[in-house]
Amino acid sequence: MYDSTLQVRSKQIPYFRTDEFSKIMLDMESQIKRCMETSEDSKVAIITGSGTAGMEAVVSNAFDDRDKVLVINGGSFGHRFVQLCEIYNIQYDEIKLELGEKFKKEHLESIDGSNYTAMLVNIDETSVGQLYNINIIKEFCQKYNLYLIVDAISSFMSDEYKMDEWGIDCTIVSSQKALALAPGLAIITMNKKFYENKIENKKPKNLYLNIEEHIKNMKRGQTPFTPAVGVILELKDRLDNIEKIGKDNIIKETKEKAQYFRKKIMEIDGITIPDYILSNTVTPIIVKGKAVKIFNNLKDKYGIFVTPSGGELKEDFLRIGHIGNLDISDYDELIEKIKEEL
Amino acid sequence: MYDSTLQVRSKQIPYFRTDEFSKIMLDMESQIKRCMETSEDSKVAIITGSGTAGMEAVVSNAFDDRDKVLVINGGSFGHRFVQLCEIYNIQYDEIKLELGEKFKKEHLESIDGSNYTAMLVNIDETSVGQLYNINIIKEFCQKYNLYLIVDAISSFMSDEYKMDEWGIDCTIVSSQKALALAPGLAIITMNKKFYENKIENKKPKNLYLNIEEHIKNMKRGQTPFTPAVGVILELKDRLDNIEKIGKDNIIKETKEKAQYFRKKIMEIDGITIPDYILSNTVTPIIVKGKAVKIFNNLKDKYGIFVTPSGGELKEDFLRIGHIGNLDISDYDELIEKIKEEL
Repeated sequence: MYDSTLQVRSKQIPYFRTDEFSKIMLDMESQIKRCMETSEDSKVAIITGSGTAGMEAVVSNAFDDRDKVLVINGGSFGHRFVQLCEIYNIQYDEIKLELGEKFKKEHLESIDGSNYTAMLVNIDETSVGQLYNINIIKEFCQKYNLYLIVDAISSFMSDEYKMDEWGIDCTIVSSQKALALAPGLAIITMNKKFYENKIENKKPKNLYLNIEEHIKNMKRGQTPFTPAVGVILELKDRLDNIEKIGKDNIIKETKEKAQYFRKKIMEIDGITIPDYILSNTVTPIIVKGKAVKIFNNLKDKYGIFVTPSGGELKEDFLRIGHIGNLDISDYDELIEKIKEEL
Repeated sequence: MYDSTLQVRSKQIPYFRTDEFSKIMLDMESQIKRCMETSEDSKVAIITGSGTAGMEAVVSNAFDDRDKVLVINGGSFGHRFVQLCEIYNIQYDEIKLELGEKFKKEHLESIDGSNYTAMLVNIDETSVGQLYNINIIKEFCQKYNLYLIVDAISSFMSDEYKMDEWGIDCTIVSSQKALALAPGLAIITMNKKFYENKIENKKPKNLYLNIEEHIKNMKRGQTPFTPAVGVILELKDRLDNIEKIGKDNIIKETKEKAQYFRKKIMEIDGITIPDYILSNTVTPIIVKGKAVKIFNNLKDKYGIFVTPSGGELKEDFLRIGHIGNLDISDYDELIEKIKEEL
């Protein structure tokens, strides 16, 4: 968390049904669109909840049993899209990637896209750190005129992101990843066409996650239910800083940290990195059989947190983050400690 | 917000998939049950979202088209229960109270409770500040063997609350009311019978608000999705303080503030208070035609926030809070300012 965010957090949280708060929300709406690189007529819903709340809001509001969607399921977040389709009775097919399998053009070549209305993608499948090639996806969606829904939760503000240029109709992000804020907000950005055709004027399936209610309230800078006001104020501060520093500069810095770490860690015997494209957000490292031990020792001895994995990856796989308030010297230290634990 | 809460907020937010965080969650689960005055075999789900998220989780998870529920609709939060029943196709009847109408025994006398499986009540209907008489409700639910679901969002920790003694099967609260924390958490406490009969082993209707997933994860002190870790740490600190100070002492102090304010404000010509039972949380005051002016002037001239109302109450109705870090002298000042604005 940045010092500036901690400053915001140190103040009392104001009452929010005020013109002042509305102004903050409306400013923020425009800032988010600029950051997403989408046009001013796009819509933004800010929902208090995790990224999954954002994914569920989009899937449940936009699709029903007359749709069929195509999901890239390359890990636990792809699986979450699948779960949502099952719960809401939305027909789907999945492109299921094996553990460590790279997403390629060939995965889409045999698929007749005219069977679908939309494609659901976790652009960075966080659970394994694979960044999917957006050009392959964009081309497929444009060829078959599919809506493209992107969970960019762990990629936004770490990797390049050009919503309109890449033909993305709807983007889901959250507050706690590269924005480096407290967890608690999901942010849904939709272009006009997607919002008007797939979200607006539908019979609601839920209340709290009803996107149209959020958009209606956003017109006056408000939310339908009490939002995580604290995190919203952190977000405003962060967006102001992003505009000052420049989105490209922030991404460049994260990229440099990721590249520095990757170069150094590859020099260590017994550690490998998967061969798919990686997001700048995290580096997945493979440390056969030693992941749990390294995770626990780093935490207990040094108070350093790396991200462990669950399930079949548990003993072999760790993820090292490059987002938030970290610098090169932090990685030098981390690499030394990992070496000691091998 | 208390100083102690601001202290917690000034620190970096830790990674949460750790044994340390799990221990905090499990401790907190027991503390919440003690605060609710329910037995240790009750279940607690902590959901990142507003109080409405908690209400929706309960209504959508517990009831379906084989249920019929009875709702006391005495304002906008009662109406929210009605909305939820409509969205989820749950049959309901409502006891609709007119604006300012007091809830009485007579409202239930003509109703055949054997038509229902549950009763849904906002124990303090926040929009008008009416605290419903729990004895009337308890008697009715016990007579007809109905599950009693209570939204205690604006009452919990301001008013007495005895979940088991009052025959309440499920309680919904949130972080930002009398707990005086940042908004962002809904807390659902269910007794064993309600959980096992109405929540467990059902086909899920949603993912993010699926209570059973939360309970399964809570067994190891975790949540299914990234929670508002910051607010959870604030909650732990607050619960520790509640146990130190004593729940009864905190409620007594709030009650004294409410009574002090009510006595003083009634002495002012042109201000009245509704004649129903009031929660200690807020005092609703009726200031015919002047509510918007008073709200704006207090805010703009003095940075003092009272709670305005929407709809037909907008010009006449203000609510003055008694929760959080306020003392008697704050009310003396507020009363002087209100006098000036009349």
